[in-house]
Amino acid sequence: MNYAQRRLQLRKLVPQGDILILSATHVPRNYPAEIYPFHQDSTFRYFTGLNEPDAALMILADGTEKLYVSAPDPGDVIWTGPVPSPRELADLASIEGIADYRKLANDIGKSTLWIEPYDFQLKLRLSEWTGLPVSDLPKHASRELGRGIIALRSIKDDAEIAQIESAIALTRRMIANARAAIEPGKLESDIVAALLAPAIAKERDQAFNPIVTTHGETLHNETYHHRIESGDMVLIDCGSESELGYCADITRTFPAGDVFSDRQQMLYDAVLRAQLAGIEQTGIVGTTQYDVHMAACRALTAALQDIGLMKGNIEDSLIQGAHALFMPHGIGHMLGLDAHDMENYGDDVGYAPGTKRSTQFGLDALRLARRLEPGFVITVEPGCYFIPELIDRWAAKKHLADFIRYDELEKYRDCRGIRIEDDILITAQGSRVLGPGIEK
Amino acid sequence: MNYAQRRLQLRKLVPQGDILILSATHVPRNYPAEIYPFHQDSTFRYFTGLNEPDAALMILADGTEKLYVSAPDPGDVIWTGPVPSPRELADLASIEGIADYRKLANDIGKSTLWIEPYDFQLKLRLSEWTGLPVSDLPKHASRELGRGIIALRSIKDDAEIAQIESAIALTRRMIANARAAIEPGKLESDIVAALLAPAIAKERDQAFNPIVTTHGETLHNETYHHRIESGDMVLIDCGSESELGYCADITRTFPAGDVFSDRQQMLYDAVLRAQLAGIEQTGIVGTTQYDVHMAACRALTAALQDIGLMKGNIEDSLIQGAHALFMPHGIGHMLGLDAHDMENYGDDVGYAPGTKRSTQFGLDALRLARRLEPGFVITVEPGCYFIPELIDRWAAKKHLADFIRYDELEKYRDCRGIRIEDDILITAQGSRVLGPGIEK
Repeated sequence: MNYAQRRLQLRKLVPQGDILILSATHVPRNYPAEIYPFHQDSTFRYFTGLNEPDAALMILADGTEKLYVSAPDPGDVIWTGPVPSPRELADLASIEGIADYRKLANDIGKSTLWIEPYDFQLKLRLSEWTGLPVSDLPKHASRELGRGIIALRSIKDDAEIAQIESAIALTRRMIANARAAIEPGKLESDIVAALLAPAIAKERDQAFNPIVTTHGETLHNETYHHRIESGDMVLIDCGSESELGYCADITRTFPAGDVFSDRQQMLYDAVLRAQLAGIEQTGIVGTTQYDVHMAACRALTAALQDIGLMKGNIEDSLIQGAHALFMPHGIGHMLGLDAHDMENYGDDVGYAPGTKRSTQFGLDALRLARRLEPGFVITVEPGCYFIPELIDRWAAKKHLADFIRYDELEKYRDCRGIRIEDDILITAQGSRVLGPGIEK
Repeated sequence: MNYAQRRLQLRKLVPQGDILILSATHVPRNYPAEIYPFHQDSTFRYFTGLNEPDAALMILADGTEKLYVSAPDPGDVIWTGPVPSPRELADLASIEGIADYRKLANDIGKSTLWIEPYDFQLKLRLSEWTGLPVSDLPKHASRELGRGIIALRSIKDDAEIAQIESAIALTRRMIANARAAIEPGKLESDIVAALLAPAIAKERDQAFNPIVTTHGETLHNETYHHRIESGDMVLIDCGSESELGYCADITRTFPAGDVFSDRQQMLYDAVLRAQLAGIEQTGIVGTTQYDVHMAACRALTAALQDIGLMKGNIEDSLIQGAHALFMPHGIGHMLGLDAHDMENYGDDVGYAPGTKRSTQFGLDALRLARRLEPGFVITVEPGCYFIPELIDRWAAKKHLADFIRYDELEKYRDCRGIRIEDDILITAQGSRVLGPGIEK
């Protein structure tokens, strides 16, 4: 679908009211003029293709469309060079009407539908435009509009799949570059430099701050100061964006030297077994992502029983969530213009109407549980972690001791973390791992 | 001065009221959990050395000090690993009192002094804590506190100079790496990859989004998509941060091939002459940065007269700002924990009490004009640009035609832009170009 078709579809899904979609703004870092690199709002980009800050799309109740932008200040030409006119921008997005962003407030009324911005400057602006206090924005945001956007953005067409695959292809080069740089004595940050170079050379943003760590057991480790020691593993979780802003999200875990130790190899094989079981489950037509999660966790539990770290009836163990000691996160999430696609729309993305996220430890971090439909792109990313603080907390209470061999586990507490992740397209017949193969 | 001494000095400069200084926050990029890399507020870092988000320093009227932080959530350990306790953080900053950031509002009263945050989330929080609308924050911010902070941060001690010089040393490596990568056929972004690699490998942020462009005439060109052609020049304006967050800010302009063309060489020499004249002026005890600006512009005017692009009485030309056609920006700014150091404090940084920024085109962009004092670190960064839109605008009006040879200028309109920039320390006896020499 082109941008105009997407807007038409949205208008059909949300037939009443004026629909307002805001672009991102420049975000100050040290002071107003020192900004973070601009990153467009994914929904605005999805419906317009434009990469402009401080713009807005209005789809009126009668189906007409307006693009709100600020006319360039002629004095700015010395700082910015020539920039496209409002008309040129609107033409790029096939939008007929143009209007002044600074007068947008005049066109916002009680029947205007909008979603709550995650950007704080936009929260403030919307508060000013609507007369609502910032704290009241969530309850006036249109859940119906959010659901319409989710319905469209969830189903990726061929052009979007091609974008994701091009992001994965670049990510594969990044990971190959990084892997070639891994050697004992270097810092994690040395590997980050190798990882990012191919993306910077193509002027591609990262889909998220990459994880490059010898301490994979810290799930969101975004610092890079450890020195790589012989015998370490290096976990790399990263993804480039494509030209149009679509994301890759890939994880690989490598030995610091040529090969894993025997114990690392056993644990790696356990995670790989879990990942392959998860991917296999994605191919079952009509499966839910909850079932994908459970399939992977079942395989992980079985593998950890083989290793001697778990025990007992596998189904009981699964239902009680014993594996969450080793894998306290969900199996994966939607992927698209965001790494956690549409996460700002809340659990309507991952949970069907009437269903709720579990509060069980581990499952409480499962972002996506619903039935998988053709066109969904999701990640499958099981891991196995030895988190000393978590082990100690569970061991002290002998938590789920019917399923965990705490005595044996003590010998593994310094094993850190392993994760393997790929991006999967759900098709009418099954599923397909996206992108060129990446060694695992 | 250590952090405790800095706070003591601030308390002496601002003797009344409780002083509140806020740390930066995590800034959402795609959704609340997908954030830009964290960047600390420079003033909070200056007075505490801490790199924590969501913290605050209070220096009470009686001189006692409190650090507000949030106690870590035990559940977060799986995501973040072990983190320092509030007591450990306060000890790092030599602060005696600790308190809960979530209860900070209770300790904010009418006599609390604060500066207006540039971060929009902090604007909102401060509005909530003080009961003031966000739009009223500027008029309730303490200009006295701002001036006290400026007075301290403006004078760099030896340890700060060492930090800036280490940032410059790394920046020199970045520029050498980039220069070695320049060749016709490559993209600007290829050069960016080479430029950033040494900084990423040391886990150092950039002081600002680097400029790497074959179109130096666009002053703030932060895209990198041009292909480098034979005969181009590549302008690189960049700076790494040091370990403690101090900035370098260096500009060099290189030929795409081995040598400049004759015309490029003439223009380059004109800019170099202007830069050396500016640097020489910084060495005159008691000079103002306004005089540094004028010294550089005088030399540039003389050089452009020699080339045949300008004419007439040099002092008249200077006073009327004819050179601003070629150099529409100021000669430089303060440098420290920010690239434009303390720019969020407004013109109190660069202009003495009772003086105002000129409205003349060119001078209106001069961020720093005041008397230079020992311990100031400033940039000297003249340039010469051929901005087609600006040339056309002036030529159409024959603006300042007594000083500009518009007929001759027409032949140069595709010459683009050159800039040369170094960082200068003002000393008691004169001034010193900081860092290892960088070829120019």
